Amino acid sequence: MAGMITADEARALQRDYVYAIDDGKLAEWPTYFTDPCLYKITTRENLRQGYPLSIMLCDNQAMLFDRVEATEKANIYEPHMYRHILSDAQVIKAEGEVISVRTSFICVRTMLDGSMSLFVSGEYLDEVVRDKGRCRFRSKTVVLDPSRIDTLIAIPL
Amino acid sequence: MAGMITADEARALQRDYVYAIDDGKLAEWPTYFTDPCLYKITTRENLRQGYPLSIMLCDNQAMLFDRVEATEKANIYEPHMYRHILSDAQVIKAEGEVISVRTSFICVRTMLDGSMSLFVSGEYLDEVVRDKGRCRFRSKTVVLDPSRIDTLIAIPL
Amino acid sequence: MAGMITADEARALQRDYVYAIDDGKLAEWPTYFTDPCLYKITTRENLRQGYPLSIMLCDNQAMLFDRVEATEKANIYEPHMYRHILSDAQVIKAEGEVISVRTSFICVRTMLDGSMSLFVSGEYLDEVVRDKGRCRFRSKTVVLDPSRIDTLIAIPL
Repeated sequence: MAGMITADEARALQRDYVYAIDDGKLAEWPTYFTDPCLYKITTRENLRQGYPLSIMLCDNQAMLFDRVEATEKANIYEPHMYRHILSDAQVIKAEGEVISVRTSFICVRTMLDGSMSLFVSGEYLDEVVRDKGRCRFRSKTVVLDPSRIDTLIAIPL
Repeated sequence: MAGMITADEARALQRDYVYAIDDGKLAEWPTYFTDPCLYKITTRENLRQGYPLSIMLCDNQAMLFDRVEATEKANIYEPHMYRHILSDAQVIKAEGEVISVRTSFICVRTMLDGSMSLFVSGEYLDEVVRDKGRCRFRSKTVVLDPSRIDTLIAIPL
Repeated sequence: MAGMITADEARALQRDYVYAIDDGKLAEWPTYFTDPCLYKITTRENLRQGYPLSIMLCDNQAMLFDRVEATEKANIYEPHMYRHILSDAQVIKAEGEVISVRTSFICVRTMLDGSMSLFVSGEYLDEVVRDKGRCRFRSKTVVLDPSRIDTLIAIPL
């Protein structure tokens, strides 16, 4: 189980991660990360300008679980449905026992009244390691294309 | 040719299936299924609530061919173009000679006047088997995210 | 290095190509092609009707570099962000040292004010060869679903 992680393994982790979110299995969401970890949401413009600020930052599992709880409370009144579509992943670096991967994605949101919209586009910048018997994200940076993000707190991304 | 179907083979079948639909090769569409088969369109809300109702259900190739014929007649007056985009497939179960796979997708529609829209998002829940020399869908459940589906009869999904 | 190109290699080339475009690395864009090459943008309707006209045609690297320069000038005043999402690639033909592949895609555009829209959908029809130590496009035909294309000159596709 030790040693290098393949691009296919990293891609499978990312795939399972978004299916879990789309299924609303939010309690599973933190288990995709190591503990401690780095989970960060930022914007493309922030990244381009070199601004250090994030929209959201969690650095351990307890914080991730807090976020799930907040999300579940917030979502009681608006049961949207989300659908992530992943493009092909690109390996950025594979060094020692860490693989760094980027994956473009879009997320579509459907309201209960049936209306659909493009919720957000962006990319995942991930560091994947082997941890307690499976692959997990040691760090995940979600880079959003739009800079306005007021509603984005709705779900984990 | 007998025996287990790989995830790659199931994914290739799903890929060829959507390219055939997008190309308007509707006469090919039924050949992607075994006979008898199960082809079902439902909504995420139906599935979540455990409602048994489907929007559409075909259980043999003759019914699929009937549907193609209806589609071709209906489409004479509105030659839209469709484009499916598939996310990564996830194997749900691989038992004996059946593989069960899910695949998130979106479908974009372009009208002849050039206007584009997100037509539908959802996922395919498929059972793939080997049948008469190639992989085919023994069952395909198309789970649509939106619950309103009045225009969905336009094409096979 | 010589010999057949695999479907995976062709897919990786297409993936790297769209990440380079989305990153705004336009100076890299021409290096994805052989010299001479064939780069063509057309519409699905054109292709269906058999019209020979293209929206754009470049047949060597110098022309591609000219296009980059024009794009960079044009974009000074409107720094949009683009995000390509690729569906699964389908091998059309693999003969000798050329592989022909098609890939459905959508491209989402985000304006600096944060508004997002589905910019274009379509497919890539590519011929990939090995050339000077790596895979490159000997020809790339970008088939756009919409027929109206006035703003499409904004970026390479």
